[in-house]
Amino acid sequence: MILLIYAHPHHSRSIAQRALLEAVIDLPRLTFHPLYDRYPDFAIDVAAEQALMRRAQLVIWQHPLYWYAPPALLKLWYEDVLTRGWAFGEGGDALAGKDCLWVTSTGALPEAYQAGGAHQHDFAAFEPVVKQTARFCKMNWQEPIVVHGAHRIDAAMLAQHAAQYRARLQAWSQAHG
Amino acid sequence: MILLIYAHPHHSRSIAQRALLEAVIDLPRLTFHPLYDRYPDFAIDVAAEQALMRRAQLVIWQHPLYWYAPPALLKLWYEDVLTRGWAFGEGGDALAGKDCLWVTSTGALPEAYQAGGAHQHDFAAFEPVVKQTARFCKMNWQEPIVVHGAHRIDAAMLAQHAAQYRARLQAWSQAHG
Repeated sequence: MILLIYAHPHHSRSIAQRALLEAVIDLPRLTFHPLYDRYPDFAIDVAAEQALMRRAQLVIWQHPLYWYAPPALLKLWYEDVLTRGWAFGEGGDALAGKDCLWVTSTGALPEAYQAGGAHQHDFAAFEPVVKQTARFCKMNWQEPIVVHGAHRIDAAMLAQHAAQYRARLQAWSQAHG
Repeated sequence: MILLIYAHPHHSRSIAQRALLEAVIDLPRLTFHPLYDRYPDFAIDVAAEQALMRRAQLVIWQHPLYWYAPPALLKLWYEDVLTRGWAFGEGGDALAGKDCLWVTSTGALPEAYQAGGAHQHDFAAFEPVVKQTARFCKMNWQEPIVVHGAHRIDAAMLAQHAAQYRARLQAWSQAHG
């Protein structure tokens, strides 16, 4: 099962995230799990989340990038759900061997992500926080999907990203039939 | 005014953060602002926060590091308070020129932060997310204070970190008399 954990506090205003989502949401074996719909009050049901995670073989964290990082509710999800003795530490093997795919979008164009650009760093500089969260839980980090310029990307380019996302998940499903 | 924004969801269980806090909380001109006490429901009063920030000359973000990043409520604070046209973007100069100091603690010993260690990266690899958040708001990033091994640090070492923290703030106050 592919568990798509979607963290977007303003989904109705979204363009890029919505296009990405619509490209994959009908795939068989995919469970769509929109965190902000499920927990508008930030009160996460840890047991329910852990049960979902146990069933997943591929975990997707899909969200717009806010301040170089996942939105606050997904951050809270990490803190509440990925507990010691379950996800890491002694006996913490519940997620070991699952695949983890990060799908994110940024407002800025790619050239903002370099020394001298608006964000002063290559995009890769912001990856370790999320990547190491997955790896510390012994998940297999997949090559992330990152869509830059989400507010101004043209429709054809966005459609291409969306199609690539769908193809990635289809390929994963075939390989894990 | 020094604005100490403190983000600790489990302050009563804290050792390192509590010691750091107690070392500075009585300093003159310091405003202590415990986010989890103020907003247990995650409903941030943006106008109140922005008014506080306007008055600050030095902003401190103090918190334990959870999953390589600030706790979820501080992440939400970034998203809610640091708005376009106020903290960044056109007309967004409210925080320009203020100093920003990151004070954080980790559970792991320093040697966990290297290739081959439990966290696979030097600690510096996790800094850009927070540092660039400050810089994008045109704040002056100060050398952070990072205390490793918060769960097992000995009392003398912790006292030394705490004294250094106090000395840093006193020196700042003298320079900004």
